[in-house]
Amino acid sequence: MAAALLLLVVLAAAALAGTEASAFAAASNNATAPPTPVVVVEGKLNVHLVPHSHDDVGWLKTVDQYYVGSNTTIQGACVMNTLDSVVDALARDPARKFVVVEQAFFQRWWAEKSPTIQAIVHKLVDSGQLEFINGGWCMHDEAAVHYIDMIDQTTLGHRMIKKQFNKTPRAGWQIDPFGHSAVQAYLLGAELGFESVHFARIDYQDRAKRKADKGLEVIWRGSRTFGSSSQIFTNAFPVHYSPPDGFDFEVLDDIIPVQDDMSLFDYNVEERVNDFVAAAIAQVNVTRTNHIMWTMGDDFNYQYAESWFRNMDTLIKHVNKDGRVHALYSTPSIYTDAKHASNESWPVKYDDYFPYADSTNAYWTGYFTSRPTFKRYVRVYSGYYLAARQIEFLVGRSSLGLFTSSLEDAMGIAQHHDAVSGCHRNCDVQATLIVQVENGVSTALTCLTSSNRTCVSSTTKFEQCPLLNISYCPSTEKASSATKSLVVVVYNPLGWERSDFIRVPVNDENLAVKNSDGTIVESQLVEVDNVTSNLRKFYVKAYLGITSDKAPKYWLVFQASVPPMGWNSYYISKSTGAAHNGRGYASAVVSPSNDTIEVGPGPLKMSFSSASGQLKRMFNSVSGVDLPIQQSFLWYRSSEGDSMDSQASGAYIFRPDGNTPTIVSSSVSLKVIRGPLVDEVHQQFSSWVYQITRLYKNKEHAEVEYTIGPIPVDDDIGKEVITRMTANMVTNSTFYTDSNGRDFLKRVRNFREDWDLQVTQPVAGNYYPVNLGLYIADGKYELSVLVDRAVGASSIQDGQLEIMLHRRLLKDDARGVGEPLDEVVCVGKDCEGLTARGTYYVNVEKIGHGAHWRRTYGQQVYSPFLLAFTHEEETKWKSYSIPKASMMDANYSLPNNVAIVTLQNLDDGTTLLRLAHLFQAAEDPQYSVLAKVDLRKVFGKRTIKELTETNLSANQKKSEMKKLNWKVVGETENGPTPVKGGPVDSQALVIELGPMEIRTFLLKF
Amino acid sequence: MAAALLLLVVLAAAALAGTEASAFAAASNNATAPPTPVVVVEGKLNVHLVPHSHDDVGWLKTVDQYYVGSNTTIQGACVMNTLDSVVDALARDPARKFVVVEQAFFQRWWAEKSPTIQAIVHKLVDSGQLEFINGGWCMHDEAAVHYIDMIDQTTLGHRMIKKQFNKTPRAGWQIDPFGHSAVQAYLLGAELGFESVHFARIDYQDRAKRKADKGLEVIWRGSRTFGSSSQIFTNAFPVHYSPPDGFDFEVLDDIIPVQDDMSLFDYNVEERVNDFVAAAIAQVNVTRTNHIMWTMGDDFNYQYAESWFRNMDTLIKHVNKDGRVHALYSTPSIYTDAKHASNESWPVKYDDYFPYADSTNAYWTGYFTSRPTFKRYVRVYSGYYLAARQIEFLVGRSSLGLFTSSLEDAMGIAQHHDAVSGCHRNCDVQATLIVQVENGVSTALTCLTSSNRTCVSSTTKFEQCPLLNISYCPSTEKASSATKSLVVVVYNPLGWERSDFIRVPVNDENLAVKNSDGTIVESQLVEVDNVTSNLRKFYVKAYLGITSDKAPKYWLVFQASVPPMGWNSYYISKSTGAAHNGRGYASAVVSPSNDTIEVGPGPLKMSFSSASGQLKRMFNSVSGVDLPIQQSFLWYRSSEGDSMDSQASGAYIFRPDGNTPTIVSSSVSLKVIRGPLVDEVHQQFSSWVYQITRLYKNKEHAEVEYTIGPIPVDDDIGKEVITRMTANMVTNSTFYTDSNGRDFLKRVRNFREDWDLQVTQPVAGNYYPVNLGLYIADGKYELSVLVDRAVGASSIQDGQLEIMLHRRLLKDDARGVGEPLDEVVCVGKDCEGLTARGTYYVNVEKIGHGAHWRRTYGQQVYSPFLLAFTHEEETKWKSYSIPKASMMDANYSLPNNVAIVTLQNLDDGTTLLRLAHLFQAAEDPQYSVLAKVDLRKVFGKRTIKELTETNLSANQKKSEMKKLNWKVVGETENGPTPVKGGPVDSQALVIELGPMEIRTFLLKF
Repeated sequence: MAAALLLLVVLAAAALAGTEASAFAAASNNATAPPTPVVVVEGKLNVHLVPHSHDDVGWLKTVDQYYVGSNTTIQGACVMNTLDSVVDALARDPARKFVVVEQAFFQRWWAEKSPTIQAIVHKLVDSGQLEFINGGWCMHDEAAVHYIDMIDQTTLGHRMIKKQFNKTPRAGWQIDPFGHSAVQAYLLGAELGFESVHFARIDYQDRAKRKADKGLEVIWRGSRTFGSSSQIFTNAFPVHYSPPDGFDFEVLDDIIPVQDDMSLFDYNVEERVNDFVAAAIAQVNVTRTNHIMWTMGDDFNYQYAESWFRNMDTLIKHVNKDGRVHALYSTPSIYTDAKHASNESWPVKYDDYFPYADSTNAYWTGYFTSRPTFKRYVRVYSGYYLAARQIEFLVGRSSLGLFTSSLEDAMGIAQHHDAVSGCHRNCDVQATLIVQVENGVSTALTCLTSSNRTCVSSTTKFEQCPLLNISYCPSTEKASSATKSLVVVVYNPLGWERSDFIRVPVNDENLAVKNSDGTIVESQLVEVDNVTSNLRKFYVKAYLGITSDKAPKYWLVFQASVPPMGWNSYYISKSTGAAHNGRGYASAVVSPSNDTIEVGPGPLKMSFSSASGQLKRMFNSVSGVDLPIQQSFLWYRSSEGDSMDSQASGAYIFRPDGNTPTIVSSSVSLKVIRGPLVDEVHQQFSSWVYQITRLYKNKEHAEVEYTIGPIPVDDDIGKEVITRMTANMVTNSTFYTDSNGRDFLKRVRNFREDWDLQVTQPVAGNYYPVNLGLYIADGKYELSVLVDRAVGASSIQDGQLEIMLHRRLLKDDARGVGEPLDEVVCVGKDCEGLTARGTYYVNVEKIGHGAHWRRTYGQQVYSPFLLAFTHEEETKWKSYSIPKASMMDANYSLPNNVAIVTLQNLDDGTTLLRLAHLFQAAEDPQYSVLAKVDLRKVFGKRTIKELTETNLSANQKKSEMKKLNWKVVGETENGPTPVKGGPVDSQALVIELGPMEIRTFLLKF
Repeated sequence: MAAALLLLVVLAAAALAGTEASAFAAASNNATAPPTPVVVVEGKLNVHLVPHSHDDVGWLKTVDQYYVGSNTTIQGACVMNTLDSVVDALARDPARKFVVVEQAFFQRWWAEKSPTIQAIVHKLVDSGQLEFINGGWCMHDEAAVHYIDMIDQTTLGHRMIKKQFNKTPRAGWQIDPFGHSAVQAYLLGAELGFESVHFARIDYQDRAKRKADKGLEVIWRGSRTFGSSSQIFTNAFPVHYSPPDGFDFEVLDDIIPVQDDMSLFDYNVEERVNDFVAAAIAQVNVTRTNHIMWTMGDDFNYQYAESWFRNMDTLIKHVNKDGRVHALYSTPSIYTDAKHASNESWPVKYDDYFPYADSTNAYWTGYFTSRPTFKRYVRVYSGYYLAARQIEFLVGRSSLGLFTSSLEDAMGIAQHHDAVSGCHRNCDVQATLIVQVENGVSTALTCLTSSNRTCVSSTTKFEQCPLLNISYCPSTEKASSATKSLVVVVYNPLGWERSDFIRVPVNDENLAVKNSDGTIVESQLVEVDNVTSNLRKFYVKAYLGITSDKAPKYWLVFQASVPPMGWNSYYISKSTGAAHNGRGYASAVVSPSNDTIEVGPGPLKMSFSSASGQLKRMFNSVSGVDLPIQQSFLWYRSSEGDSMDSQASGAYIFRPDGNTPTIVSSSVSLKVIRGPLVDEVHQQFSSWVYQITRLYKNKEHAEVEYTIGPIPVDDDIGKEVITRMTANMVTNSTFYTDSNGRDFLKRVRNFREDWDLQVTQPVAGNYYPVNLGLYIADGKYELSVLVDRAVGASSIQDGQLEIMLHRRLLKDDARGVGEPLDEVVCVGKDCEGLTARGTYYVNVEKIGHGAHWRRTYGQQVYSPFLLAFTHEEETKWKSYSIPKASMMDANYSLPNNVAIVTLQNLDDGTTLLRLAHLFQAAEDPQYSVLAKVDLRKVFGKRTIKELTETNLSANQKKSEMKKLNWKVVGETENGPTPVKGGPVDSQALVIELGPMEIRTFLLKF
């Protein structure tokens, strides 16, 4: 009976939706040995067995250790074993399949393999036995990761797969990340060309409802701007990414082998087939259509692949002989085709899957902030990598080669969902890779600034100062000589001219700053505070092993102005007394005399209480905005579990103990420093919380630098430290947070759009990940905060915004990392809790005007000036240098709503260009419109010979991207068509971008 | 420099000793891909890496579980993985090698493999990459195993290897057994054609001395009879059979991968090479020649072989690049050739390596007795299997096929060093295999006794009674009907006519026994004692699940006389009163009247004290021997470890607590039963020790049946129960125990021939394994005891013999089995300690006359009558039956000093015959001489068409066996040439056998 119903999916899918036929054609594109066709049986329950191994690109061990399999006492895992043994197992039987995910491992392995093995792998890929899915360098996190990093690490993997195998991954496979972002769905999904995305972790309440509604599989429209034009089929697993109970076949696991040899005493095949059928029926009861997926694998599985395939072979044989259900080797692509061919209607899902809870008191919102200094490190090098690639492009491929490649790899690893998430164990940071790239950038700047394009200069040797934030910069600290100036080359990676303040540590009180045309620039000296001096001493020793000299005395502050994608040079030298006459050189410490102290040399003013030292209000003399606002530091006491639930707060999970957070100090010591460029308010909240608020001359926001730590735990209490702003605003439980630094999503306290939320954790359950910023609004104002790294944030009361800045915990949260999140830093045996220093930016605007600041200043936060220092005679320097330049035509800059998010020379001779519109639809009346970029002006003297538009990861032409059409429940017509740019005329070379649009091009010059 | 010294072992070995060249020729006998030749470097230290996995054929898990890899919580082990992955790994690189040992696993695997894989394996074997060593079904034990079982299980494996691969294993590989036997050395070594044997476990004191003397490697002459004509190169490892520390590369073990990729952070190849060189130098310092072996593997290793080979590949590459030492993939055969080529002189070793201690208080002498009922079970089926194969031969291959094959497999597994040794966990005995063979034997007897050779008889259906020892035998218990008799067919597997007493349980008081010519045979009824009735009830329920009827009332005893390798029939029926007139039908219970009771209806008499119930003396009215002798049961209190050493007594280790053993009872109740055939002395030593001594009419030994158990442990004391005979003899610390039931070896208390023994365990350190028996002698007498199973035994005081009969312990001895040796038997939830019942045989002879009894009666103990029962009218039975027959010519029987140890139809149409001379050189003046067997008379009407003499395991012609010559230290000439039989004339077919000679033939009829 069953035989009559046999039908190839190949045919079914092709008949129903011609578009995906080629995907199957690819699967049978093996000249030497045509693969067994994938057979599904109509009218039967088809169980798609998807063999996979989840290989964390670093977690409890380093990536190297996972690859080679050392340190097995920590975790038994060796990815070399997996790949070697999978290839053997696949080669043994053409029916077998396997999906390969993480390219960080695969590429290392591939490079080591002999041509013989490579040829075997090529065959396996061509025949569809081995399929690449996801295909990025790692399986990136979705909460604490920036969209540019997501794109970069995915592009890295996708282009290698394309180059080596001429394949484009068809499915997203984000099985482990702890919640799922809107940007993942539409940008790193639909815009990559993925037809589906698959994952395990969604909220337990959400999952329960979706199981009841058969709504685990949905059509996800992550972008409110793009709607159905950027949707993706989404498969949330009913349990986890492991197989149903009893169907684990990992070598040395406690497996139940399938035994069909009747001469053996443990013969059990009937029983195993019954178990299989029962598990399949249980799953199809919560699933639409007659197709279910079994994820046949787990973390670092297939250490010896034959153990899995041997048992699956036997199961498939006997299950199909039994006939009640049909089992087959499959992949997410094949599964998605089968789903699509079923012509079913699917529920629609908007926005994202945050926050994620796996049980009542287990909200995975701690990791939004965990390891804040590592998160900052990743963000710093994300921006740095963007700038470095621009510099690499500018200097040209002939001179220095692709010196940013090593950072590309390191940044790819850093985006892993156990890396930037902060949920890994302490590992050595791969600092040597960073040094390579810094050296590359320094050399490239030598080339660029050399008028005869000499990359090797006997005199000019640029230094960079990654520890500038703690006032460590040997180049600037060095006393200026009588003859040589300190030359500061300032590179601006943004597409528009900008003026920003530069602060460098100096020891000389008599310094003058000149710009590249020789005119004196206003500057200000600010004494380096003790907190910074102490940090500098400890961390320079801890990180560099250098016992540093005395801390520098001053910050020298001046404003630099740099053309788009170009540089400018500044000269700092001993001043003759006259030079500073009347130019407000020094800062003055102000003693409070009134109840209130008002600070701010520019339009934005802030008032502080002289008595309590606390912030009282912000107002803007230009816009007239005037908002009573307070700010405090508080800490949640971490739960260590209680009698009802042993769940502790930990690296992943934020579980406060239920009490209101403790205020660090309601009365703080205050020190106000005023000067011509910047006013600073120094507040010592406690011995371990220090804050400096800076208001600059012509900026409409406050820059708030906090220094938190070592968080005291001698009271045996874990602490999760927040800053909280309380404004006098009625915000109706609503606040807005970004998705991976891109879209802003509306959040409503104690509410979920997809189900009736049962509130069990009124704080942790309202935390959301923030990468760019967050804001609240009432009828009059918008209060916005931008951040310098990934954090968790919320609005627990109307009018409030709170950001978790640092966490120090004493218990493990039992999610695998196996140690408490208690970061310490040591100098020899002298260890102390980690101190986190960072900056956030606060702005108040009239309602409707916040977006422009958030979007444009957000670009400046992400892409700060890149500074390089050298010492040279000013005139001599000028004689052989180009002190100021821009890539673009003079007077051209990108429109305010567009950024270049990638400009990168690729190893195949092409150049990768990505342009991003920065505004969502309807976000700003002036900027949420079609923007145009004139590429000929962008690239100035360079001539574009060829331009090819591609998908987001640049592994296929845009024109060849395929999309499946999906029927959704209750929808009769598509929504309004989003504004998108049209085709690019190869002569005019003007690129149009609609709101939120990112367009990717491969250029040849 | 090194290059100039490169020399192929192939050439070196061939030049120095032409005989082994062919072994190398075989190694390069691969037509398709000539292997990389094995290269050693002269003048350098050569490190032979021997990749191996030690796969116990059952230990903590069953064989099936080990094979398929289930129950990994007990032990992570799956032999399928090992073999699958090793083949992949070898196929990947022709330089790699691996040795396969246990055929029980390999053959199961081989049978499952596709022709493709089989072809690959053939290539690997042909090229020498995959080498079979040892090659038996298992790696048999050497203490608790009978030589016939050793031969059988080795032959099974060897012949399969020969048939499938045309290979003969060249090396013994007994790496794990806990001590090494003389029979292993010469019989299962040299006589198999092995050139070497390799193992890990020798006494720690012995090892220390041998390391100091560079005497770990020796020429071992295990046979005093054969001397240098049956010697073998023996390699005892300096540590264990695992690699040197740090060179384990098992998947998921805590390995240190060898990393030569400088871009990885854990790059360590120089360090690993240094470690390698250091470990090699440490080893060569205790080794003769420039060749050392590293055993690269461990228990159930190579679960994923690539993990090993990948790391070894890298090591070999870099070690050889380094150049200080030379590393190579090797095998024991290659290693032995290199040793041989070195022309070194080696120390000589005689006798055996028992007992084995691994530290001061850890003598592995407990396992000589552990699980005594399992040991008996193995011995029963060993003898049964020998008889069954004879019956299979007699009935002819056309009728029933090879019905003994399943027992062949089961017996092979039982000989494993964690099986018959008693050092495994409780596992289900494979009872169904036994039933198959019993059914085969019953059917075969139907054929044989049917005059028209009908194998299917509507009436005759034979039953056998394996639980006869506890009086359970439904066939004989059934009341005789008026018309039908109980027909007892008695098969005699020995080569000579014999008369033995048969005891069957019956319920009828009026029974007559007739022999096949109708004459009445004398019989005697003995009441079944309560101890036996209770055992019967409990164990029949426990083992068969049958609630048995009332116990039978009587044992019916009669003497049966059966021709050599033939049968006779006896008829038991209701007697008419007259039949028993004056024939002493009933037994009489005697009440003691004197101080001393003398019993024994025949020549042997025993005296017991009426007062204490104890044995006082034995005397023989024919020989005049008269020996005062006492016998007691005692128990050693098991040590649970003490403050100095936590070592406990356990399954492997015997560690008494140091006190003298406790006597079970010095005054016992006595019951004497007399009759015409047998006198019985029943002694109740305690509630858990019962003994019956039987003296038969015309036997010169006492048969002593003990019933021990349940050993009480409610006092929390583990007990090791012995029987001790104390005779009035001056024995000079000397006693004799057999080696695997074959040679008798001289043992001297507190003395070792090879080193100055430091006595730490005065009891456990003097225990030796016994399979056949042991004896002591003074100037006048020999006191001999034969046993019915493997036991541990000793002589702790002069004149004493003690045998450990049963052990019940409460602690694990920390040697891996992980549970105390505490055997319990359950009926439902009613569990009790195991009761062991067994028999030993005691004989006293004049000095010089003991051997004949030990050798000939030993054969009867090993090969008892095989009994089959049916019910039929006597006359009817006679009308269609052959009630009595012999395979041999009438009036022919084997000489008293020869036994047929194998007669077996093989699957290739040939018949395997082994004849064994039963006496050592000089053991008996009359019998230690050349014996002759006239094969034409042995096989009666059958005509031998072809006779080929082979080595012991019948995998090569005797004439083609090769032997290496070895130089030994201090020897200038060979000893006297042993007496051996000459070539067999193919017409005369008379086989000559010298003392201890075993000759193996393949016959065609």
